[in-house]
Amino acid sequence: MKNIPIPDRIDRADNEPRELSITPNFLAHADGSVLICCGQTKVICTATIDENVPAFLKNQGRGWVTAEYGMLPASANGRMRREAAAGKQSGRTQEIQRLIGRSLRAVVDMEKLGSRQILIDCDVIQADGGTRTASISGAFVALSLAVNQLLARGVISENPIREAVAAISVGILNDRLLLDLDYPEDSACDADINVVMTASQQLVEIQGTAEGATFSMQQLNELISLAQKGIEQILAAQQQALADN
Amino acid sequence: MKNIPIPDRIDRADNEPRELSITPNFLAHADGSVLICCGQTKVICTATIDENVPAFLKNQGRGWVTAEYGMLPASANGRMRREAAAGKQSGRTQEIQRLIGRSLRAVVDMEKLGSRQILIDCDVIQADGGTRTASISGAFVALSLAVNQLLARGVISENPIREAVAAISVGILNDRLLLDLDYPEDSACDADINVVMTASQQLVEIQGTAEGATFSMQQLNELISLAQKGIEQILAAQQQALADN
Amino acid sequence: MKNIPIPDRIDRADNEPRELSITPNFLAHADGSVLICCGQTKVICTATIDENVPAFLKNQGRGWVTAEYGMLPASANGRMRREAAAGKQSGRTQEIQRLIGRSLRAVVDMEKLGSRQILIDCDVIQADGGTRTASISGAFVALSLAVNQLLARGVISENPIREAVAAISVGILNDRLLLDLDYPEDSACDADINVVMTASQQLVEIQGTAEGATFSMQQLNELISLAQKGIEQILAAQQQALADN
Amino acid sequence: MKNIPIPDRIDRADNEPRELSITPNFLAHADGSVLICCGQTKVICTATIDENVPAFLKNQGRGWVTAEYGMLPASANGRMRREAAAGKQSGRTQEIQRLIGRSLRAVVDMEKLGSRQILIDCDVIQADGGTRTASISGAFVALSLAVNQLLARGVISENPIREAVAAISVGILNDRLLLDLDYPEDSACDADINVVMTASQQLVEIQGTAEGATFSMQQLNELISLAQKGIEQILAAQQQALADN
Amino acid sequence: MKNIPIPDRIDRADNEPRELSITPNFLAHADGSVLICCGQTKVICTATIDENVPAFLKNQGRGWVTAEYGMLPASANGRMRREAAAGKQSGRTQEIQRLIGRSLRAVVDMEKLGSRQILIDCDVIQADGGTRTASISGAFVALSLAVNQLLARGVISENPIREAVAAISVGILNDRLLLDLDYPEDSACDADINVVMTASQQLVEIQGTAEGATFSMQQLNELISLAQKGIEQILAAQQQALADN
Amino acid sequence: MKNIPIPDRIDRADNEPRELSITPNFLAHADGSVLICCGQTKVICTATIDENVPAFLKNQGRGWVTAEYGMLPASANGRMRREAAAGKQSGRTQEIQRLIGRSLRAVVDMEKLGSRQILIDCDVIQADGGTRTASISGAFVALSLAVNQLLARGVISENPIREAVAAISVGILNDRLLLDLDYPEDSACDADINVVMTASQQLVEIQGTAEGATFSMQQLNELISLAQKGIEQILAAQQQALADN
Repeated sequence: MKNIPIPDRIDRADNEPRELSITPNFLAHADGSVLICCGQTKVICTATIDENVPAFLKNQGRGWVTAEYGMLPASANGRMRREAAAGKQSGRTQEIQRLIGRSLRAVVDMEKLGSRQILIDCDVIQADGGTRTASISGAFVALSLAVNQLLARGVISENPIREAVAAISVGILNDRLLLDLDYPEDSACDADINVVMTASQQLVEIQGTAEGATFSMQQLNELISLAQKGIEQILAAQQQALADN
Repeated sequence: MKNIPIPDRIDRADNEPRELSITPNFLAHADGSVLICCGQTKVICTATIDENVPAFLKNQGRGWVTAEYGMLPASANGRMRREAAAGKQSGRTQEIQRLIGRSLRAVVDMEKLGSRQILIDCDVIQADGGTRTASISGAFVALSLAVNQLLARGVISENPIREAVAAISVGILNDRLLLDLDYPEDSACDADINVVMTASQQLVEIQGTAEGATFSMQQLNELISLAQKGIEQILAAQQQALADN
Repeated sequence: MKNIPIPDRIDRADNEPRELSITPNFLAHADGSVLICCGQTKVICTATIDENVPAFLKNQGRGWVTAEYGMLPASANGRMRREAAAGKQSGRTQEIQRLIGRSLRAVVDMEKLGSRQILIDCDVIQADGGTRTASISGAFVALSLAVNQLLARGVISENPIREAVAAISVGILNDRLLLDLDYPEDSACDADINVVMTASQQLVEIQGTAEGATFSMQQLNELISLAQKGIEQILAAQQQALADN
Repeated sequence: MKNIPIPDRIDRADNEPRELSITPNFLAHADGSVLICCGQTKVICTATIDENVPAFLKNQGRGWVTAEYGMLPASANGRMRREAAAGKQSGRTQEIQRLIGRSLRAVVDMEKLGSRQILIDCDVIQADGGTRTASISGAFVALSLAVNQLLARGVISENPIREAVAAISVGILNDRLLLDLDYPEDSACDADINVVMTASQQLVEIQGTAEGATFSMQQLNELISLAQKGIEQILAAQQQALADN
Repeated sequence: MKNIPIPDRIDRADNEPRELSITPNFLAHADGSVLICCGQTKVICTATIDENVPAFLKNQGRGWVTAEYGMLPASANGRMRREAAAGKQSGRTQEIQRLIGRSLRAVVDMEKLGSRQILIDCDVIQADGGTRTASISGAFVALSLAVNQLLARGVISENPIREAVAAISVGILNDRLLLDLDYPEDSACDADINVVMTASQQLVEIQGTAEGATFSMQQLNELISLAQKGIEQILAAQQQALADN
Repeated sequence: MKNIPIPDRIDRADNEPRELSITPNFLAHADGSVLICCGQTKVICTATIDENVPAFLKNQGRGWVTAEYGMLPASANGRMRREAAAGKQSGRTQEIQRLIGRSLRAVVDMEKLGSRQILIDCDVIQADGGTRTASISGAFVALSLAVNQLLARGVISENPIREAVAAISVGILNDRLLLDLDYPEDSACDADINVVMTASQQLVEIQGTAEGATFSMQQLNELISLAQKGIEQILAAQQQALADN
């Protein structure tokens, strides 16, 4: 255990998520876009419709959803090197963008999407923990907005999105079970788990990592239950954002 | 001449700039940050203080200001390839970030800044022409905010910023002289000039380019006069943003 | 569900792992090395002691364990492009090598390791599913062999390895729960989970992914129990290999 | 102002350019080639006809002119790193080659050139200031030689070159206005401007930069007039080289 | 001369090669594969049939053979940086893989191979000198196994392999002429020559290098005769491996 | 055998080299420089003194000589891609520059050179076969000029160059033995050998390659004798160039 003294939460209970807002149509040019704010974490998520498909899907009548992720150099404490200047994306970046893509693909019917792909971009403009889960939750709304355009334009006739998907982090910090970690909590915690779940409470992805201390099966179950509670709130906010739009 | 039919401006005269807003302290972690909006063009500019200097300035007691520039992939019409994924910055990107750096260095006294550098990041989140000039105008405010921190903390005793600097574009479109081009105008115009000017009306940078048609000395002078008018308004907005802060 | 017709297992039950062998000291020059074979999957794992530490650990008296992963181009069906020739490691490669490093670090006391790092290399020479979990299980033995050298040479006085760690995959295929998937099963399954667990049955990493179909909490628990059974057998084989040595 | 003591010019007045020579057909294999020497600055410029066009011009019946620029590692004082070994072209290199390309395109009628491109290479073998302007002036002759081949072979029937183009630098050094700066002058000067102008005295590009001190509109006009005088001499030398050929 | 004290050979005479073994069909998925062991040097060589040809051979009815080479990071004493992580292959790697490709192409009739290529991979898992010559000798067997598959499947009707090819190193060490250098000998020797020769005793490649001391024509001839003796033994082992298969 | 009809030589016998010229001090800034012309092949060779040594020679009192090689994009028939733009040096380029470096190091006493390195650059401005051998022969003169400067400045007291070195190619073309191949001959020949030899007729490097047809030991000896004759003439031209200087 790291035993870093992290103070008790002041403005929320351990099992409460941070304040959440989702602003649809945040950018003028993308086919779908949102600004999602989870506490101090702010991510711009966009969806771009591309009538081409990757090479491995040519002539199959099926679509694809893929994602890219980035952080503004000054989005976090202590400027990070710009990946475009470094000439490559870090392992962390690639891991996150692969996770976002898989999470969204799990709720999309690729036959109904037809022979086109939707390119998701998640760009963190301010980071305070949970950027990958915020990206997934926000990207789902951007994806939905783009799909709504395809439906409205009559390009596709059936909605390829089977159900909503959202994500949140949970962690163990000195035996406390915490929902929706901010950056100081995330850095100090013994184990943290990112949970991606659908509206029907099925798991899509679960990534649990213990750098400091390991965790038991019982803790895993308690953490996932905690995550489920947080995800319900995000799913509601997603629906609200889509309804407002 | 390209003779592309660009309609007359509806909401402003040819010699009027676009609506401008500068929001200081837009991000939580950077030493200085603004969101600058010039019409539909929106750029996040940040300044990060770095107590190291580049190798060529080691042990000289002098500082440096340098800049990087990027665009979110979905910031413009038609998603661009993410430069971090492509593995390199385009020639255009490098040209722009070099211009931003030079423009700011022209108004900073490096001896007074002392042995440290200020790293500027300009990230375009929405693009509608004039992203490089908006970046310069916004970056000056971010730089000033970071310098104010150094002064407030007593790290430096004298303000190294000699005077304000701002930038705007002007162009010739079918014999009309236009101030502050938006993207359709910029794409259609015969020649366009980016002008970087100080509060004392001295030129810092002037970059005039004629892909379609060439331009005369007289036109150059008229265009620079037009730019000067626009820059005065930007300088006022910069001062207002710094005063509000 | 994908409903790809995968035949029943002939030579083992659904809850049985593949045949496992771990050959210690497989290479002459590395400080620790093994060849691990899980069915047709074969990975060379090596551990190299490096008396330097990464920059972020300078002068802290603490050590580090990090890992790299690769596949011979002809290790799998259909030659893959050599990553050294392509000029970069794929996202998948980076994701796997980060997982291996985290898994091993979870059981190492970095203070006891002292100011040095151990570099793990996992190179797949033949691939038939489960290369990342085989890499973790084999790398633990290579790491132990290298640590034993440090102890034998008197470089460190206390064993920094707290307990053993091993990994295995489990998956859901047409409602069957399968332990230790081979490649055809892995490609066809609806969801698969990689479980990294210690000798004391604590979880280190859990990565569950549903590209085809999502999975419930109950399925997750059944799968992890299945994995635990397989990991016990691997832990025994690791101890045997270390004892033989 | 930098106030570096640069001695007065000995062999020429402040408003005189350096000795200029243009040797046509300097290389055996290129479609057009020259060696241009401006004082101690020596650049090999070549033009290669390529019957392909860039992707964005496919099937439009229009051509293109593009340029690349490089310096031999030992061309300047103090060997520079070879860009091919470094694995990328510097920002400065990209900025210069984009400038050369734009300058030449401004005088070429792309419809008359037809569906082909001309690739310009400017390689500096000895550098003493003004390599980008020498490259433009020399490249125009190489381009003309290649175009003459197209005309002679009957591939095109009308000359696509509308008029000649040339370039020179001017600068302010301790209040002196200097034409055609050599390297010590260029390094010391307060502001320098590269002027690209056509035979009809129209401006194509103007790039003015003040790193040390800013400059006024009046100075800008005086400097451009000075440049115009120098460019007239270069235009004459270009015509002579083409006539000799 | 380096005069590094290298002890006399204990287990073999100066004109004897190291123990050699060639294990055919070492990997399950490649079209041809061997493990070749020359003393402590161990290389996995594979051959993959690819029904595409390089661009320069399109529509010519002729085939190609090309090779790639790599070393596991921990294959030699002192871990080397992984080339995939470094982002490029070293000059040494490229030189070796070009040599392997040329050596094999010299004995293949490309018309008889038809419009397809065979991709050779040589991956050193343990290095003790002579990895490039072992790679050539092993790759010939892997290539033959792949060709045999093409013949067995009736894809081609005539064997495109004209004759066998093998390679070995020879060197001068303190006036001793040595056959088949191991790593300590290779590092210490004054000159070393890699000889690639066919079954009909014709030379395919000869690469002689003197970093320490130069060598005479007479020495060259003696060394090549020595190499010829070693190559005869390798050719026999190759035939045995193919016959066993 | 390729049997490409290459006409008999008109202006020289099969055993005669091409016309050779070596112009010392070709560039103003390098510590040593030449332009070497072998027939239509023209290479600029420079030597730059660098008071730093590579990491592996730190604090050993010994020096180093290393080389880089490049070709202007338009130096050969059909423009090649610029390696700096491609972002990497080809395998051929790396092979050649490694050869040049080794060839020069073979005649330099690194203790006498002292703790510094000499960086050689060979840049082909016009290519007609034999660029690597011309580079070696020219680079030796550039190296000697730089060493002479070190001696003249009293930086070193003894000449570290033990003897001269030069290189030439020989080849077999339809049973004719040819000295100093031009490009059409080099492309057509059955085997070609690059020979690097010292003034005392010792071999430094020999690289023989048979893509088309193999060659016998007897042919090898005849070719090396032919090369020796050509190298004598180059050695004389080198001495003349150094004496003229």
